[in-house]
Amino acid sequence: MNNSERPLILCAPAPRTLDLIFSAEALCRLQAGYEIVETDETRLPALPDEVLARASYIIGQPAIDEALLSRLTSLRCIFNVEGNLMNNMPYPLLFERGIHVVTTTEVFAQPVAELGIALALNLMRGIVDADLDFRQGREKWGGEGNGDARLLYGADVGLVGYGGLGRALHRLLVPFQTRLRVYDPWLPRSIIVEAGAEPTDLHSVLERSDVLFVVAGVTSENQNFLGAQHFASMRKGASFILLSRADVVDFDALIQAVRSGHITGASDVFPEEPMPADHPVRSLPGFLRSAHRAGALDAAFKKMGDYVLEDLELLDQGLPPQRCKKAERETVQRMRSRPVDVN
Amino acid sequence: MNNSERPLILCAPAPRTLDLIFSAEALCRLQAGYEIVETDETRLPALPDEVLARASYIIGQPAIDEALLSRLTSLRCIFNVEGNLMNNMPYPLLFERGIHVVTTTEVFAQPVAELGIALALNLMRGIVDADLDFRQGREKWGGEGNGDARLLYGADVGLVGYGGLGRALHRLLVPFQTRLRVYDPWLPRSIIVEAGAEPTDLHSVLERSDVLFVVAGVTSENQNFLGAQHFASMRKGASFILLSRADVVDFDALIQAVRSGHITGASDVFPEEPMPADHPVRSLPGFLRSAHRAGALDAAFKKMGDYVLEDLELLDQGLPPQRCKKAERETVQRMRSRPVDVN
Amino acid sequence: MNNSERPLILCAPAPRTLDLIFSAEALCRLQAGYEIVETDETRLPALPDEVLARASYIIGQPAIDEALLSRLTSLRCIFNVEGNLMNNMPYPLLFERGIHVVTTTEVFAQPVAELGIALALNLMRGIVDADLDFRQGREKWGGEGNGDARLLYGADVGLVGYGGLGRALHRLLVPFQTRLRVYDPWLPRSIIVEAGAEPTDLHSVLERSDVLFVVAGVTSENQNFLGAQHFASMRKGASFILLSRADVVDFDALIQAVRSGHITGASDVFPEEPMPADHPVRSLPGFLRSAHRAGALDAAFKKMGDYVLEDLELLDQGLPPQRCKKAERETVQRMRSRPVDVN
Amino acid sequence: MNNSERPLILCAPAPRTLDLIFSAEALCRLQAGYEIVETDETRLPALPDEVLARASYIIGQPAIDEALLSRLTSLRCIFNVEGNLMNNMPYPLLFERGIHVVTTTEVFAQPVAELGIALALNLMRGIVDADLDFRQGREKWGGEGNGDARLLYGADVGLVGYGGLGRALHRLLVPFQTRLRVYDPWLPRSIIVEAGAEPTDLHSVLERSDVLFVVAGVTSENQNFLGAQHFASMRKGASFILLSRADVVDFDALIQAVRSGHITGASDVFPEEPMPADHPVRSLPGFLRSAHRAGALDAAFKKMGDYVLEDLELLDQGLPPQRCKKAERETVQRMRSRPVDVN
Repeated sequence: MNNSERPLILCAPAPRTLDLIFSAEALCRLQAGYEIVETDETRLPALPDEVLARASYIIGQPAIDEALLSRLTSLRCIFNVEGNLMNNMPYPLLFERGIHVVTTTEVFAQPVAELGIALALNLMRGIVDADLDFRQGREKWGGEGNGDARLLYGADVGLVGYGGLGRALHRLLVPFQTRLRVYDPWLPRSIIVEAGAEPTDLHSVLERSDVLFVVAGVTSENQNFLGAQHFASMRKGASFILLSRADVVDFDALIQAVRSGHITGASDVFPEEPMPADHPVRSLPGFLRSAHRAGALDAAFKKMGDYVLEDLELLDQGLPPQRCKKAERETVQRMRSRPVDVN
Repeated sequence: MNNSERPLILCAPAPRTLDLIFSAEALCRLQAGYEIVETDETRLPALPDEVLARASYIIGQPAIDEALLSRLTSLRCIFNVEGNLMNNMPYPLLFERGIHVVTTTEVFAQPVAELGIALALNLMRGIVDADLDFRQGREKWGGEGNGDARLLYGADVGLVGYGGLGRALHRLLVPFQTRLRVYDPWLPRSIIVEAGAEPTDLHSVLERSDVLFVVAGVTSENQNFLGAQHFASMRKGASFILLSRADVVDFDALIQAVRSGHITGASDVFPEEPMPADHPVRSLPGFLRSAHRAGALDAAFKKMGDYVLEDLELLDQGLPPQRCKKAERETVQRMRSRPVDVN
Repeated sequence: MNNSERPLILCAPAPRTLDLIFSAEALCRLQAGYEIVETDETRLPALPDEVLARASYIIGQPAIDEALLSRLTSLRCIFNVEGNLMNNMPYPLLFERGIHVVTTTEVFAQPVAELGIALALNLMRGIVDADLDFRQGREKWGGEGNGDARLLYGADVGLVGYGGLGRALHRLLVPFQTRLRVYDPWLPRSIIVEAGAEPTDLHSVLERSDVLFVVAGVTSENQNFLGAQHFASMRKGASFILLSRADVVDFDALIQAVRSGHITGASDVFPEEPMPADHPVRSLPGFLRSAHRAGALDAAFKKMGDYVLEDLELLDQGLPPQRCKKAERETVQRMRSRPVDVN
Repeated sequence: MNNSERPLILCAPAPRTLDLIFSAEALCRLQAGYEIVETDETRLPALPDEVLARASYIIGQPAIDEALLSRLTSLRCIFNVEGNLMNNMPYPLLFERGIHVVTTTEVFAQPVAELGIALALNLMRGIVDADLDFRQGREKWGGEGNGDARLLYGADVGLVGYGGLGRALHRLLVPFQTRLRVYDPWLPRSIIVEAGAEPTDLHSVLERSDVLFVVAGVTSENQNFLGAQHFASMRKGASFILLSRADVVDFDALIQAVRSGHITGASDVFPEEPMPADHPVRSLPGFLRSAHRAGALDAAFKKMGDYVLEDLELLDQGLPPQRCKKAERETVQRMRSRPVDVN
């Protein structure tokens, strides 16, 4: 095939890079099957009309205004490989034209879920402090060290959010035979029931959980929606594990609830990243810190490229993408998670 | 019922106590249904013949010699609630008389398996050191901190031993979709295959695992059976997790293999418990330490009592015990795990 | 609420009826929450502009032309409760306006899958003929009657199609520990792999299956796509089970392949329904017949109404429907399954 | 090895034969590893003392009296490949000497469970009669033919008995998300609970099941234990499926309960096998008949030989058998199932 026969892809994956999201082998396949034009948000509008008119796909989420969109006459799909949908495109126009906007965020579900399970078990068994004590000759042996230790088996577990990450967590929780309650206002109850969990309201999921995972993305409606009174309503000694976005919680209130000893906590996300050097969360007892590392594994990034290639193949045959997640008219403009700066 | 109508139980559960292994409610049921004679190894032989002759059950594993056994004319079952079978009874005679010797060790399978999964995920994701770094302002954010991070999903996992603990681990591993290899020379291959794992030899399970769990008890044949050459045969960067008994490994060789950076490691058991204050394992990088706390949860101890009550009920009806694990003629004298001093 | 405050639904569910798809309780909820205008394809265009302009939803798939659509100014979702998407609406215009077209076909997945498993086991064990023989005193006892009997456990199973029905079958097959191959050209391979099956081509799924389930809908591309040479490529003695639409197979060739003894077969769907009284399939040995009864259970119909109610609730909140399946621009016009006449 | 070095096996597998239970390859392995003496119940006592004294194993269950046993001085295990423990050996003496008596009945669990699921689905969906109607041009199409049809999904299911067969059924039932109640008086409740079912009494399992599987063996205590009043206590329209032994039910009462239309039924076992030509069960509507074919598949018989070989290997190493099921002192003499005449 010469270039003009292959579908043209505009690549502007910042802050990702093609090398980050495609393995060497996958990049070869991409280059063999497609005409690649590497660009970025700034240079994109300056591309010749002829190139823009031939572009079938965009990898990345560069800002696109109506004028630019009108020049992208063949565009069929935008692969947002960052994952958070910024408000920098005329989404209604995209949907009207039937241009798919898809994200590859699902690649993070398994890595984040694995860290989530680890953080839960760590909090329930005091593993980090036990190792530190052992290093320092202060360890307690056997049952003497297990005063607060609890099993995940049979525990009451709550999920706030039941998207890809919530479902990945659920899968890992199945053999622990937990009683799983789920709060997700965007989902029909029966989907949760069929999955083997119990749909419930926010109030109940907070009050009745031994372990609570917060895996909901930030929307225009749920910023800071978990505050002091919510933490106070949790069971004494319960574990609160934040895996999605810091903006859904009042972080100071969370710190206070942990400091008071009412709950224990863990988080992979923080209101500022990096956090200030003197921030009190750094020395907060009863709290585990993960520096936004839950998902950012090389294996996950490379899966992004694989997902893109699989959906390109379907799109090339005139079929809808199935592997990446389609943004939807109703929700795209409600999402408010900040994009990452660091991969 | 007056005393003489209820079956008589000799209780000598040291180092456990009845309060440790029976919940208040379970103890009530025990006392209501049985005549309880609390005793210990020293006082047991001094009990009147009439009491010994009426004893249907023993809870504990006091030393019993042939003379004492001949006085225990009604004995039907010994509930060993410590779990390690000491060589302090004439087992062949017990079996000849059809007296069951059962252990309650299965209660530890789930708690130890949960810790095992946590240790594996901790090693694969560097969670403990990441939290310490964060405390000290040295954390790395996002992918920058994930250089060595790996997923458990899809990993090659090995089990050395496939008893109750190995099976509990397997159950928790299922949703991680690992490729699971099992080495257990006491089991037919087809049992492992039907369970969904791959029976293999020691050599292969060492060489082909990203994560290796050692969950085999100590026998007369396997003391120190894992040494320097075994650790050397493991994959670079693999994780070695010891959950059963320290005596199955050459512990110095394990420390050396971790120190060299060839493998990472974690252990719940140690050659001396407690370990000397200046032992090098305390400061060993790449190693996680748990002070024999994996199983010793109150929930597990209380389950012992529940198991005993359920099997007593069957035995009272002339049925064999099903809940506790029966010791067997062939293997009872091969077991060499040291009993615990601390619960 | 008075009528004008409640969202208006145009109900034209033929050939279904509201009583068929809503339980008494669900119908109450529908009537309480919505203004219901019962109509049909013929009367719909004659409704006053004011009514059409207020209609938020349609239940049914009445013919809609562009003129009618232009009067449905508030329309947000069409609930197709028949399930097969007829070419009687300007779908591109609907999608351009962001009007959802959704189907409730998923309600049939579980009932059809259950029948599918039953048909497979019946063919593998000869259950129907064994019962007939027993009635007539010709039964063979024990192993003598099991000459051709086979287990589903561990068998090679193939699925042609991996939509809702294919996945429901897969779930039921899991404990049989089959080796499952899937052919579905509309799906990325990795989705099939992650689900625990093996993506493959049509050729392989035919050649390597002991039991083959055909669960693909009819499209403009796959009519009669399974013919004599395909049946010939199957394993001697394999079972062919047709659960989706008769038009995907060359039915005469299927009958011939079964009659020759090369394969056994079962079908829930037929080229004509009802079949002629003298059709040879009626007396075909090695073949099981189900008169399009696989899905049509009252429990399934009532679930349609529940699905509609759940998605109405989401739509009322400005959220996208999640419970019913959304039709997609790319595939809606490819589907060619005939609608049912009989419920 | 010459003969005298290989362990000697006395083979008296009637009514099985070595060819039935060993594949060609397995028989080779048996003959290579062991000295085989083929005999039968009649000739066994006439074997030279020297041969009897060298016999380590017996395959079969020939009658053995105390005199004969005293000559079998090296005997370590009897492999009962028929499966029903006849009262033709001095079991107490065997157990006293530590001679294992093991059965290979587990090989039938999966085949019988598969037939059980098929019978249940057949009864719930009327599959056999629907096929007959179709043959005869009387079929009803779609929902019209599904008046009584029910789903297994979500149904109340009961098991009477929870041995190997009950557990195999349970595994197959899991994806149907049934509510499973189990009655098994020989098992601790917690084993049933941990397996994910609900332990209950006989009364409840009868009253609360939509589908009831009877999978209990016959004992000295449960002959005919299910009679007219039990069937009357079942739900109207429930399905009764008998898979173990006819002697546990009052068969005439079962027939009457089905004839009255109160329940539907299916059975693989009958009070006489074969049944008389004019027995009313042959024409009983609402009943499915299987002529003791549920387990007798060649694949199951061959697995017997595999099980024997695997346990021989363990026994040769001084380990206890694990693959076959050990008979137990307490229960061996309670079992009363009749041996089969036909394989």
